[in-house]
Amino acid sequence: MQIIKTIHIEEAKPKKAAAYRHVSREIQAEDSTVQVGDVTFGAEKPVIIAGPCSIESKEQLLAIAKSVKASGAQMLRGGAFKPRTSPYSFQGLGIEGLQILKEVSDEIGIPTVSELTSIDELPHFIDTVDMLQIGARNMQNFDLLKKAAQSQKPILLKRGMSATLEEFLLAAEYILKEGNSQLVLCERGIRTFENSSRNILDLNSLALVRILSHLPIIADPSHAGGRRDLILPLSKAALAAGAQGLIIETHNDPEQALCDGKQSLTLDQFHDLQTNINQ
Amino acid sequence: MQIIKTIHIEEAKPKKAAAYRHVSREIQAEDSTVQVGDVTFGAEKPVIIAGPCSIESKEQLLAIAKSVKASGAQMLRGGAFKPRTSPYSFQGLGIEGLQILKEVSDEIGIPTVSELTSIDELPHFIDTVDMLQIGARNMQNFDLLKKAAQSQKPILLKRGMSATLEEFLLAAEYILKEGNSQLVLCERGIRTFENSSRNILDLNSLALVRILSHLPIIADPSHAGGRRDLILPLSKAALAAGAQGLIIETHNDPEQALCDGKQSLTLDQFHDLQTNINQ
Amino acid sequence: MQIIKTIHIEEAKPKKAAAYRHVSREIQAEDSTVQVGDVTFGAEKPVIIAGPCSIESKEQLLAIAKSVKASGAQMLRGGAFKPRTSPYSFQGLGIEGLQILKEVSDEIGIPTVSELTSIDELPHFIDTVDMLQIGARNMQNFDLLKKAAQSQKPILLKRGMSATLEEFLLAAEYILKEGNSQLVLCERGIRTFENSSRNILDLNSLALVRILSHLPIIADPSHAGGRRDLILPLSKAALAAGAQGLIIETHNDPEQALCDGKQSLTLDQFHDLQTNINQ
Amino acid sequence: MQIIKTIHIEEAKPKKAAAYRHVSREIQAEDSTVQVGDVTFGAEKPVIIAGPCSIESKEQLLAIAKSVKASGAQMLRGGAFKPRTSPYSFQGLGIEGLQILKEVSDEIGIPTVSELTSIDELPHFIDTVDMLQIGARNMQNFDLLKKAAQSQKPILLKRGMSATLEEFLLAAEYILKEGNSQLVLCERGIRTFENSSRNILDLNSLALVRILSHLPIIADPSHAGGRRDLILPLSKAALAAGAQGLIIETHNDPEQALCDGKQSLTLDQFHDLQTNINQ
Repeated sequence: MQIIKTIHIEEAKPKKAAAYRHVSREIQAEDSTVQVGDVTFGAEKPVIIAGPCSIESKEQLLAIAKSVKASGAQMLRGGAFKPRTSPYSFQGLGIEGLQILKEVSDEIGIPTVSELTSIDELPHFIDTVDMLQIGARNMQNFDLLKKAAQSQKPILLKRGMSATLEEFLLAAEYILKEGNSQLVLCERGIRTFENSSRNILDLNSLALVRILSHLPIIADPSHAGGRRDLILPLSKAALAAGAQGLIIETHNDPEQALCDGKQSLTLDQFHDLQTNINQ
Repeated sequence: MQIIKTIHIEEAKPKKAAAYRHVSREIQAEDSTVQVGDVTFGAEKPVIIAGPCSIESKEQLLAIAKSVKASGAQMLRGGAFKPRTSPYSFQGLGIEGLQILKEVSDEIGIPTVSELTSIDELPHFIDTVDMLQIGARNMQNFDLLKKAAQSQKPILLKRGMSATLEEFLLAAEYILKEGNSQLVLCERGIRTFENSSRNILDLNSLALVRILSHLPIIADPSHAGGRRDLILPLSKAALAAGAQGLIIETHNDPEQALCDGKQSLTLDQFHDLQTNINQ
Repeated sequence: MQIIKTIHIEEAKPKKAAAYRHVSREIQAEDSTVQVGDVTFGAEKPVIIAGPCSIESKEQLLAIAKSVKASGAQMLRGGAFKPRTSPYSFQGLGIEGLQILKEVSDEIGIPTVSELTSIDELPHFIDTVDMLQIGARNMQNFDLLKKAAQSQKPILLKRGMSATLEEFLLAAEYILKEGNSQLVLCERGIRTFENSSRNILDLNSLALVRILSHLPIIADPSHAGGRRDLILPLSKAALAAGAQGLIIETHNDPEQALCDGKQSLTLDQFHDLQTNINQ
Repeated sequence: MQIIKTIHIEEAKPKKAAAYRHVSREIQAEDSTVQVGDVTFGAEKPVIIAGPCSIESKEQLLAIAKSVKASGAQMLRGGAFKPRTSPYSFQGLGIEGLQILKEVSDEIGIPTVSELTSIDELPHFIDTVDMLQIGARNMQNFDLLKKAAQSQKPILLKRGMSATLEEFLLAAEYILKEGNSQLVLCERGIRTFENSSRNILDLNSLALVRILSHLPIIADPSHAGGRRDLILPLSKAALAAGAQGLIIETHNDPEQALCDGKQSLTLDQFHDLQTNINQ
């Protein structure tokens, strides 16, 4: 019997001919830092971002912001425009939400990040928030990436829930190509066959980003786990694997939250988490 | 030993509380039809759409259009704005491409579909193409869905490469909710662990769409397979499973194509495919 | 800015240095055929196998066997040793089940296939069944593959639910390497993120097997879909994509079946399916 | 327009009616411990297991064992029977390998673990190794689980690379049901779409095992990452998420290793890892 070499069934796979012109450590060996107000991503101390999934009212956001800041959070998150799977789910307070976010930020003295979902809303975001978040569903909304980058605001780019690491880094290229290097990446879990938690936090890819790229990367254990009791172990694991920060959904009354209540920490739980990860 | 009931680890999974108000067969039992020029999706005869990944020149598109029409294609596809993974890949001819598409459509007498990637480009599309395509990467770009729907143009909505069937149907709800019922769905393959072909054509979900919804659905065997030799078997399989049409990348010189050459049929191969599926 | 070539993150992927010495079309261009009694796999006519998930009693199996044979099934399936996810689920009738299978086969005159899960049971299978099935969970139970192959019985090898095509073909190599070429492959659906049906029937890989290998391959739409209403469309799709047969769970009373009732056809439904696919 | 409640497409999913009778924390609230020689799994100190993928010779294994023990490893791993994807890859030294493992264990004074792939080999394992490993490919080889359990040897059960958490815990039930509670679980990475590393270490599931079950669980960062530079960050992350030990491929000359060289640490690198995780 004649011995034949492998049939190269892999050949079918499309060539990955991408070249990284900005994000690679081959281009910049030292870690990048990104400044948002007085907060520095990519420095030694991890940056902890906390706040609710959705801004629901000024009272709600103020209570949460005061508490998480006292517990040690350096930045406040809060959604005003929510990209919801169903058109019949709560879509956020919109411009009014951004206004509330700005007022709370000014009163408490804490920088803010909020998700941008449309280029139409960009002018409102420029006026009201300190950092633009591009969500997982929009990681390859290249038009949004370009326009957001051109604003020269700092950007938090979440990995798509089924984006490969290469696609993630090339989405980052879209932003850096516009001359905006104020970019922080965020690993938020990937979609797999496993259904006992919402997504799987991909720390392999997070660790690889630290090896391959100079950009700062943080982790989102709330979306990655989808359940409150996983947030602490996943937070500790992410920091141990090299994450330079965390973004954590926190709510003063998770059971009544208008979205993502099951994966939100209470204010007390967030305080405990801060204590625990600082040990 | 005491017997304990299941630990409900599934409870962690977010409740799917979505309600379909428009797409469901419970609301409309009979199949919907969608009219694009003289072409009817959802009628007995499957609709075959052919054409190149990217419009490269008028000569190229004219040659392809004449040939595929003669072979039996009822609609012409051609990309003008290409959402490419890398910002350094060919991004399409843009508005000039749309202009070429319109000229060729007028000369040959064949309706057209092209992918819309940004609301900024919408006015140009309204003037030049017969059907708007929303690509897989933008399936949950809800702003684009809404604005495209409001144009009242017929829409071809591709399933995201990792979107669940439920997310797909809820994206369709975003369009129908705007009062635009001229919607055709497209299964284009899903992302899995398997790497011997680009994606896996999900005929389970295609067959379920036919059961659960009245909307027409077609299949894209070019993107689902990513290799030329899979297009014929996947085309036949899709039609057998209930697909009401096909969209097939076809090129006069695939080896020189500016994108997706490996998954494009030659004009002769497309002719053979038409002959084969009509048997 | 200097332009750097791709960081080859793909390099991390383990080299696939496997060589196919028996299964490849490069070694044997023409299709193989496999003979089981008077049934030929790999010939022009597709082979339809029907029967219950589990053998429950002689009365049950006899009723099913008579009916499916009358409808056109060429072979009878029936599980005696069931590899169940939970140790507390019904595990099959064991040797008694094999005995029933043999009696029914002899009375009706129809060849049989049943799943082998342990080398200890092999002698009983050699005496009672015509074809050994290796199930999805045991596709890489290499010891079982070798011992089953050495029996020189015809074998039906199911693809693991997360096995790559390459792993599947190399599992087939384990069997052919023992000098047993009476091998039929079976695509039974793969595990993905999608949760609206049990698994996804991977017709990309089935079509690729037809291109890359001379071995016959059939499809299992019952396990691939996990729901009765998907069996007909998936069966038609599989045959259209090149499947050379089908294996279909059929039960005289699916609601009372001891396993897999939801994905079993009734005897009438199986009759309709036979009629439908013969058109 | 009438509003219809959700079409329950989830209903299609097979009911998970499994009941945990032994593995659940509802049955035993406190952590289990498993004793292998003088090593205790499930106690405060994590258990580090090191050694080569394959035993290649007594010289090789002795050199590795001396070094890793000096660095702090408490147990020695080494494969004698290797379940390889291709029948033409190195299959291990077999019984001779087990003999070498026993000699080295006796000389150095370190307990051992090695993978069992067939019930035929069980008597040899009982005589030579301290702990039986059931590999990922055999997680649902229920016959092997039962026979291994009946030996009353301590068992290390690896999660299948596409097994759900529920399937993993039910495989553990198969072992405990035989009256063998000396079971340690091992998370070794899951198969996903991502191709920049071999598998993805699933720390969500590892953390859930700590919540849902009393059984000890360790992590395998070598197989989960598939590349040497990921072993340290994944090891730290796993311990931070609650892993009670690590199993790490270590080789005196990875470039010449007969298997898995790319994912093996050198002896120096293993020493550094031990130092690093003890800080």
